[in-house]
Amino acid sequence: GTSYRIASIPGDGIGVDVTVEARKVLDRAAASHGFSLSWKEFDWSCERYTKTGSMMPDDGIEQLSRFDGIFLGAVGFPGVPDHVSLWGLLIPVRRAFTQYVNLRPVRLLPGTTSALAGRSAEELEMVIVRENSEGEYSEIGGRHNRGLENEFVLQESVFTRVGVERIIRYAFELAKTRTGRVCSATKSNGLIHSMPFWDEIFFEIASEYPDVHAEQCHVDALAARMVQAPDRLDVVVASNLFGDILSDLAAAVTGGLGMAPSGNINPTGEFPSMFEAVHGSAPDIAGQGIANPVAQILAGAMLLDHLGETAAAQDVHAAVEKVLEEGTVQTPDLGGESTTAELGSAVVAAL
Amino acid sequence: GTSYRIASIPGDGIGVDVTVEARKVLDRAAASHGFSLSWKEFDWSCERYTKTGSMMPDDGIEQLSRFDGIFLGAVGFPGVPDHVSLWGLLIPVRRAFTQYVNLRPVRLLPGTTSALAGRSAEELEMVIVRENSEGEYSEIGGRHNRGLENEFVLQESVFTRVGVERIIRYAFELAKTRTGRVCSATKSNGLIHSMPFWDEIFFEIASEYPDVHAEQCHVDALAARMVQAPDRLDVVVASNLFGDILSDLAAAVTGGLGMAPSGNINPTGEFPSMFEAVHGSAPDIAGQGIANPVAQILAGAMLLDHLGETAAAQDVHAAVEKVLEEGTVQTPDLGGESTTAELGSAVVAAL
Ligand SMILES: CC(C)[C@H](C(=O)O)[C@@H](O)C(=O)O
Ligand SMILES: CC(C)[C@H](C(=O)O)[C@@H](O)C(=O)O
Repeated sequence: GTSYRIASIPGDGIGVDVTVEARKVLDRAAASHGFSLSWKEFDWSCERYTKTGSMMPDDGIEQLSRFDGIFLGAVGFPGVPDHVSLWGLLIPVRRAFTQYVNLRPVRLLPGTTSALAGRSAEELEMVIVRENSEGEYSEIGGRHNRGLENEFVLQESVFTRVGVERIIRYAFELAKTRTGRVCSATKSNGLIHSMPFWDEIFFEIASEYPDVHAEQCHVDALAARMVQAPDRLDVVVASNLFGDILSDLAAAVTGGLGMAPSGNINPTGEFPSMFEAVHGSAPDIAGQGIANPVAQILAGAMLLDHLGETAAAQDVHAAVEKVLEEGTVQTPDLGGESTTAELGSAVVAAL
Repeated sequence: GTSYRIASIPGDGIGVDVTVEARKVLDRAAASHGFSLSWKEFDWSCERYTKTGSMMPDDGIEQLSRFDGIFLGAVGFPGVPDHVSLWGLLIPVRRAFTQYVNLRPVRLLPGTTSALAGRSAEELEMVIVRENSEGEYSEIGGRHNRGLENEFVLQESVFTRVGVERIIRYAFELAKTRTGRVCSATKSNGLIHSMPFWDEIFFEIASEYPDVHAEQCHVDALAARMVQAPDRLDVVVASNLFGDILSDLAAAVTGGLGMAPSGNINPTGEFPSMFEAVHGSAPDIAGQGIANPVAQILAGAMLLDHLGETAAAQDVHAAVEKVLEEGTVQTPDLGGESTTAELGSAVVAAL
């Protein structure tokens, strides 16, 4: 059968703990579907940074480019500033491989209760399509008059027509396969250069999709709506920063920040895509074997789906749901006393 | 007794409906406390814009400067672009009068249930201290290569040392009068120029307040925390954009987007401060007499407090709580059938 080359970057903290378990699950799913995953592990991490001064080697991007997919745990460790750990690994990979879509499905999984009173799984089903390559996350800017009274910093946001068009088009295409609804996060009343441009392109593209219901909502009101009336939301398309905030919020609303996967996707397939959990490296519980591996396993299911192994991806999903539904094997965050490995093995067994 | 000159700008939509009721309440509270409010009404609004081409006259700011306080309803109307209505009135007032604090108390009022399952009023008590004069809301930026394939926009954020220091210091001073906890919203892992600067100043100032518990949290995680674990939050200090998003979210979490007041405060007293409801002009229900006036009344209480009329402000608060607690006079959003005027009159009667 086919063999896919997968670069695994467990990273730091619980990233390491959960990646091991997710790999067990993915290998088993692969075996039952007649393909295999050929893993290569990279020790790129904050630990590497503290030893060598860089998160990954100089030719890191080039090395990764030879893989069919990238499986990332989590990066970040106390003492290493975030802007080093992230701009030294996560963000360069997203950009070098034009992973311009950050896809974050949000679902209320069995065995989890929503933080919201009286909301059902259906009302909470949505997907955040986050722009992942430009926008507010920009290296342009700097500090002036350092140490003086009139010191200030500038931070530039950059939105290109190409960048905005492609993410919005992706959202509309996705909506066609779902409920046919897209909501765009804006803030054109406050950010008077970037967001009116975003809105203009949104409505240009909306006109190409007469069958998709297109609406926009200011990001402040949209955050409120996710809490007060999430039921009319399905595909939410947002800039890099807004998508970051809204997807954490959406995950929290479903009670599942520990269960939310994320795909950094290059839709053309020209470069490898990268799959990760939304949660961070959680150094406080790292290495204790108590981290919940579900988000990382579901990130693995997204990876399989992206490779075209849809049936295997669905099986992984179903197995996770079965284990959560039974509720006998639960990590501490889910209210149980099982270990990361026990939950991983339960999913393997359910496959 | 003292007489305070108050500029009233009802604005558009339900801004007009709720301001009338709030004035009734404030006048009554003033009378029982031996002072008076001398109102002057301004028709500055989107309606004025459609007639005259501007939201306020050229000397609008100068006119307002002669008042002790400004009481704003809401601005915005379909057909008038948001960036016109807001940058033609609300935002210039905030800036011209150095109203650098946007103070947004968040409380679960009686008769309201939180959108969150099983959270008590105490767990949800917080205040958002939002920077109100600079940051992400900036006029600097523009559009390049219009109509071409390589078109892009730039949007600059500007953070000054003066601007960041004063808002953070305000938050620490406020924390001293409350629970002694401050949480700063950051995103230094993504916004690598502006937010590390914000963080640096935050910790500089924190060191001046050894008795205040200071922590920071990335805005994405903080949004999630407001939903999953709001109980350890009290004073939340945030940039203009983050404060905008977090305060709507916090209001939604308490179920009270229609009950949330907002103060645009110039703490030195050099210029007038402005008080408003967080909600917008809601054109769909304007003029029907069904809008909930509570947010505007509570904004009025903040105005009284700002004028130094603390006892009167407390009375207004108590009267609102009493009416909400009784629950016999409720506007449709609260589940009742009362009118805006009936709710206003009930609060007057409770005074
Ligand atoms: C209307 C808009 C410009 C305004 C803001 O973002 O400041 C509003 O959302 C608010 O929070 O007062
Ligand atoms: C760690 C951080 C830079 C990152 C982001 O904001 O993109 C994270 O929050 C995420 O959502 O993947």
